Amino acid sequence: MCEANVYMENEKGDLTLLLDSVDKVIPSEEAIYIENIFGERKNVVAKIKEMQLVEHKIILQSLK
Amino acid sequence: MCEANVYMENEKGDLTLLLDSVDKVIPSEEAIYIENIFGERKNVVAKIKEMQLVEHKIILQSLK
Repeated sequence: MCEANVYMENEKGDLTLLLDSVDKVIPSEEAIYIENIFGERKNVVAKIKEMQLVEHKIILQSLK
Repeated sequence: MCEANVYMENEKGDLTLLLDSVDKVIPSEEAIYIENIFGERKNVVAKIKEMQLVEHKIILQSLK
């Protein structure tokens, strides 16, 4: 399977796991909707910093 | 391997393949940088509409 783990990066560059095994990522004006293969869903006020799909890694940065 | 194919969606909703086997996706203010596992790189003036990682699909929408 080819899901990715979604991390939030803080100002220091440290990563915190937000949701694992993410399948769907849908950005909107205000937030990013993420949903994993287990049906867990989150709306995150953030922007996408970088995706490294081979590493199964999506890094978000908070907008707050 | 867990790369994705990146498609551009037009106004009618039709998808055109932009780059296959994409590993890295890095959005910036003006464009989205994509790079595949073969080292092919593109800068696309677009926004991310949706990612379906299990389907290996990233859909962009043109901003032009």
